[in-house]
Amino acid sequence: MAITIAVVGLGKIAHDQHLPAIAASDDFTLVAAASPEGTAEGVPVFKDIDGLLASGIAFDAIAMCQPPQVRYITAAKAIRAGKHVLLEKPPGATLAEVEGLVRFADEHGTTLFAAWHSRYAPAVEPARAWLAGQQVVSAEMIWKEDVRRWHPGQQWIWQPGGLGVFDPGINGLSILTRIMPDFIHLADGEMEIPSNRAAPIAARMTLADTQGAKITAEFDWRQTGPQSWEISVTTTTGTLLLTRGGSALVIDGVAQPLPERSEYPAVYADFAQLIRTGKSDTDRSPLRLVADAFLRSRHIATAPFMD
Amino acid sequence: MAITIAVVGLGKIAHDQHLPAIAASDDFTLVAAASPEGTAEGVPVFKDIDGLLASGIAFDAIAMCQPPQVRYITAAKAIRAGKHVLLEKPPGATLAEVEGLVRFADEHGTTLFAAWHSRYAPAVEPARAWLAGQQVVSAEMIWKEDVRRWHPGQQWIWQPGGLGVFDPGINGLSILTRIMPDFIHLADGEMEIPSNRAAPIAARMTLADTQGAKITAEFDWRQTGPQSWEISVTTTTGTLLLTRGGSALVIDGVAQPLPERSEYPAVYADFAQLIRTGKSDTDRSPLRLVADAFLRSRHIATAPFMD
Repeated sequence: MAITIAVVGLGKIAHDQHLPAIAASDDFTLVAAASPEGTAEGVPVFKDIDGLLASGIAFDAIAMCQPPQVRYITAAKAIRAGKHVLLEKPPGATLAEVEGLVRFADEHGTTLFAAWHSRYAPAVEPARAWLAGQQVVSAEMIWKEDVRRWHPGQQWIWQPGGLGVFDPGINGLSILTRIMPDFIHLADGEMEIPSNRAAPIAARMTLADTQGAKITAEFDWRQTGPQSWEISVTTTTGTLLLTRGGSALVIDGVAQPLPERSEYPAVYADFAQLIRTGKSDTDRSPLRLVADAFLRSRHIATAPFMD
Repeated sequence: MAITIAVVGLGKIAHDQHLPAIAASDDFTLVAAASPEGTAEGVPVFKDIDGLLASGIAFDAIAMCQPPQVRYITAAKAIRAGKHVLLEKPPGATLAEVEGLVRFADEHGTTLFAAWHSRYAPAVEPARAWLAGQQVVSAEMIWKEDVRRWHPGQQWIWQPGGLGVFDPGINGLSILTRIMPDFIHLADGEMEIPSNRAAPIAARMTLADTQGAKITAEFDWRQTGPQSWEISVTTTTGTLLLTRGGSALVIDGVAQPLPERSEYPAVYADFAQLIRTGKSDTDRSPLRLVADAFLRSRHIATAPFMD
């Protein structure tokens, strides 16, 4: 039987990804939405979570697709109402918010899913499988894109809690933390923050694993022309190159055949599986690395950024 | 039988607190130290952890008293060598570092103790006991002191990872997270960073619990004259005021009798108990709130700070 679901936050990511993935899923049936603006075809849209919960419409699960700064209170209300909750990435504007939601969900026996969609790109699990048990010598992540092209007019992304260049960068970190065979932490870093903004436009991280591998990550939102979403890893036995955000994989120079896989349909398949087995998945390691970057990095003021 | 212990980092906090507390303890016997400079009476001092571990001196436990930026690698080596580790606050320069140490200690079956010394101030446990089960209406923390008086010449404190005003402020947060009856998270914040420094000199936090209490915290390192280390809490049944960093407690206007208790001797008594029962205590909630503040706050450039 299909799981009935509502979507909160009818912005770009809901329309581009969540609504199509739900429509194509045998696991879920969309029954309602809540959003201060926007529409969803064929279902009633309430102004906010309170209106939705008061409507009497029965549903099992809810997907949180708003900007992270306003997600916590809505998610907390949904969990209190006994709903299973999917959190778009990043799962909160702070780590303690997510910790609080984890505690709520445990108390209420509901499923909480901190979804990292980039981990469902086709190259990720094959990369993880190849790296398992290997010793890493070095790794380099490059996550550079054009903010004007991918985030037109998204002002929340520049506000405190909006993460700036780490909004896309956390996708790369979600892959890196998934595929690396050893636990990694931030050793040092730098962030460039435009003088008229509250969030970084570029960042560099020096990371370390427990074996002394040299790992770097570079993030830049000023990349015009070709876009770079790549992770390369050198181990004692060979090299791995993950490109196009996890869509392609080259091992020791040979392009690997990959399974057909679309990120959001796979996210929703996992969400259904978690709900049906009564489990949660709340890995916070990508957000922890970003919080650590804000905490530990040298902050450098850079040129103002104009949209 | 006494637990043999070594101290790493013979700076101000080691001489002011750790060495006297160990000397006065029946649980511990100091056998060695490691530090690039400084001496410890009656025991050999090695330049670093490698020299100490290679010396052949047998010991059970080790206290990490260096600046947080250099603590992780030393603690990791100590855990690998099978030692029980006490971490001065903050337990690391990043959250992932502490998470990594927790994993090491689990793997090696050693005790890891993230010690928050201010939690051992005499008023803290009585405050926690009074607040247990109560509903908080509002709370206010004021943590204001004169950095020139308390941290003369400590340059590491202004470096990335040194936390700035949160170095003392995290003591207040360690008390706040201990005594509040409900889970708290950061909702909003501001940090003032001197234009010639990498860490904040002042900060304000707006916090929330799960019941809608209004909780604020203010930190300032420019406080001359009387120093303020206070937490006041109003509940539906009364008011609590913790002052002088946890040395005094007033409930509903009445000063409370408090047990005789010194922070560091109590820290070491707890460390001994953890070692003898094979347990760890690695609460990271104060550091998580500080990382969240860096992540979520508006950063404001302020006047240069001269020592």
